[in-house]
Amino acid sequence: MKKKIIVLGTGFAAFRFLKKIDISKYEVIVVSPRNHFLFTPLLPSTTVGTIEFRSIIEPIRNIDNITFYQSYCTEIDKANNKIICIDTDTGTRFELGFDYLVIAVGEVTNTFNVEGVGKYALFLKELSDARKIRTKVVECFENAYLPGISEEKRKQFLRFVVCGGGPTGVEFAAELNDFIEDDVKKKYPEISKDVEIILVESRNKLLATFDEKLSEYTMKVFQRQNINLLMNTYITSLDENKIFLSNGDTIDYGLLVWATGNTSTELVKESGFELNKQGKIITDSFFRVKNSQNIFAIGDCAGIENKNLPATAQVAQQQGVYLAKFFNDGLNQTNEFEFKSLGMLAYIGDSKALADTSQYKGTGFKTFILWRSAYLTKLVSLKNKVLVIFDWVKTFLFGRDISSF
Amino acid sequence: MKKKIIVLGTGFAAFRFLKKIDISKYEVIVVSPRNHFLFTPLLPSTTVGTIEFRSIIEPIRNIDNITFYQSYCTEIDKANNKIICIDTDTGTRFELGFDYLVIAVGEVTNTFNVEGVGKYALFLKELSDARKIRTKVVECFENAYLPGISEEKRKQFLRFVVCGGGPTGVEFAAELNDFIEDDVKKKYPEISKDVEIILVESRNKLLATFDEKLSEYTMKVFQRQNINLLMNTYITSLDENKIFLSNGDTIDYGLLVWATGNTSTELVKESGFELNKQGKIITDSFFRVKNSQNIFAIGDCAGIENKNLPATAQVAQQQGVYLAKFFNDGLNQTNEFEFKSLGMLAYIGDSKALADTSQYKGTGFKTFILWRSAYLTKLVSLKNKVLVIFDWVKTFLFGRDISSF
Repeated sequence: MKKKIIVLGTGFAAFRFLKKIDISKYEVIVVSPRNHFLFTPLLPSTTVGTIEFRSIIEPIRNIDNITFYQSYCTEIDKANNKIICIDTDTGTRFELGFDYLVIAVGEVTNTFNVEGVGKYALFLKELSDARKIRTKVVECFENAYLPGISEEKRKQFLRFVVCGGGPTGVEFAAELNDFIEDDVKKKYPEISKDVEIILVESRNKLLATFDEKLSEYTMKVFQRQNINLLMNTYITSLDENKIFLSNGDTIDYGLLVWATGNTSTELVKESGFELNKQGKIITDSFFRVKNSQNIFAIGDCAGIENKNLPATAQVAQQQGVYLAKFFNDGLNQTNEFEFKSLGMLAYIGDSKALADTSQYKGTGFKTFILWRSAYLTKLVSLKNKVLVIFDWVKTFLFGRDISSF
Repeated sequence: MKKKIIVLGTGFAAFRFLKKIDISKYEVIVVSPRNHFLFTPLLPSTTVGTIEFRSIIEPIRNIDNITFYQSYCTEIDKANNKIICIDTDTGTRFELGFDYLVIAVGEVTNTFNVEGVGKYALFLKELSDARKIRTKVVECFENAYLPGISEEKRKQFLRFVVCGGGPTGVEFAAELNDFIEDDVKKKYPEISKDVEIILVESRNKLLATFDEKLSEYTMKVFQRQNINLLMNTYITSLDENKIFLSNGDTIDYGLLVWATGNTSTELVKESGFELNKQGKIITDSFFRVKNSQNIFAIGDCAGIENKNLPATAQVAQQQGVYLAKFFNDGLNQTNEFEFKSLGMLAYIGDSKALADTSQYKGTGFKTFILWRSAYLTKLVSLKNKVLVIFDWVKTFLFGRDISSF
């Protein structure tokens, strides 16, 4: 009988693992609350409709011959080699036994326990987050347009705050700015002058993981685009209307997107596995969880002991592929995992992008074309590629849709 | 100074009026909680993803030189020629004065005060309804697939009930059946045999407004497609799990879509205007509201005195065009409105449609092509046409997306 692998998660690490695992050798069961893979690098583009939501997802059930259960795993019973799942929708509780467990549950947005974030800020991690942002952005414009609104209130509705100067925060600010330049100025001409985008970053630079020059270039481009940068500043708390800053100032805001990085899920926190300082499950170089024989962890939720890899899609993908090969080859001692960096890309608005690779460091429109081509290549299905190209053409020809529903 | 027209609504009647009204002669303000026009004839196709949501809407702000306020109108102050609006999102209250008022607010789904409908049934009138249905349908399949589920419970999740055998109910049942045949059988093969679609209709025929033969043909096609028809039956009440029928039976259901027709909005009910037996505002043949000089009503919310027109998109559109011309011509006595029926079309699944026009009564695949061509022609923008064609091709090539978010 085939050995049974349970995979927790449907992100980059899990998806690549599932695409590569040899189902003639293993029975594979996937458990995740999300029934699709999401191509997160293009998620910021969906918040304003440059790309549509369904263009960057792929149902897990499209992978042949695996079993998928849409449910949360709430507990890992290491002693008995089983997991316990509770489906939040139906309340169904069930257990699944495994021979091997692959934990690839990723992380959740870190609120740093800042008061009000969970209640009033929007995140940008799942498609449902992007949809909330898209709805809220249009609502802000519609509200600001109402005749009964004071000037002060109107300006508040049109003050968009982004917390976090990493790739997610920067790309969202860039997309929002494109939306305002390309669409809002046409559709809401009377109020477009009152729009303000503010980016709050606790350090003194944006995109800190990028080359120094590219980081500086981004700050210059943002300043030219009238994105207000509040550097060396952080948010201490917020309520429904006001953001309180570390420098004592307050901001009356219409929308706050919180993109300050991630932290462990409850499952990982309470797993009983040894975690590193970042709260990631410690594994060896073959992704075997410390002090465990048949449990593996890959992607953002895992950290190889004494090795520090960035928590990116690229790393997660390569780990998924590596681990699948390791399984397919019978779990025999082999070469340790080695991350091959393909470099980093980021979109910074106005048809400009950054590339930071070993061969090429570039900016501007040419790099924007590279950015689009690279992600197009990386999309996981022909359908995704066709849809994303179509969306880009559609946005170019017809603009972004401001309908709200 | 130009006279000011306020238009309430963004449906077929209002949209056509707005496209035709001469803005060199009038100042035009539109008030509606919905900031887009929705092409409702294709709404059932969006519930399972044959067509995407944004492919059949057009932002009202795309119409040049009109002012749009996204808000509810809560009161019409006839004596002082003004309306009172309360924006539900911001709580803003404002008043707008008018020289002419055009009421085109449509209707809302009629629950017939059946207990449980408001709480547990889904409607199919707006895009947000279609989105709820699409999410719920996939949830039903994911829930039914869970390992901890009893056979009884699984069958309940997979029992889809449609209440109402008019065009909306029939087309939704047809689309759902297509989805099951084309996609579910591939993606959820183990449970697809347990799926059941039940259509409940209080009369003894489906599509009662269509030619008798076409109505009978539809019933035969549905029976062949394993859609269970419960004729001469109505729903007396429902709770979270059970539907209670007029014949004493009960149905354990997973999803109920309620499509039994429409009734007046609160605004119309409390407008103080004289209403006809169907609760519609009584107008003369020029759509002037009875006992009023400068207030007009068109579309589903209006009824010409002693004349009975169907509450369809076709009628509403022609009324919108007529009234705009009437305004453009200076409101002078002219020919009365006359409805020119272009016939009726309905999709009944499996690439089959019905056509009931004066020249042609047809069924089957050829009529399906006619159905698609006709609606493609009727879509209100080039963008919509391109998107809908693209969606049809996409569904044909790649199937419907079962991702849920």
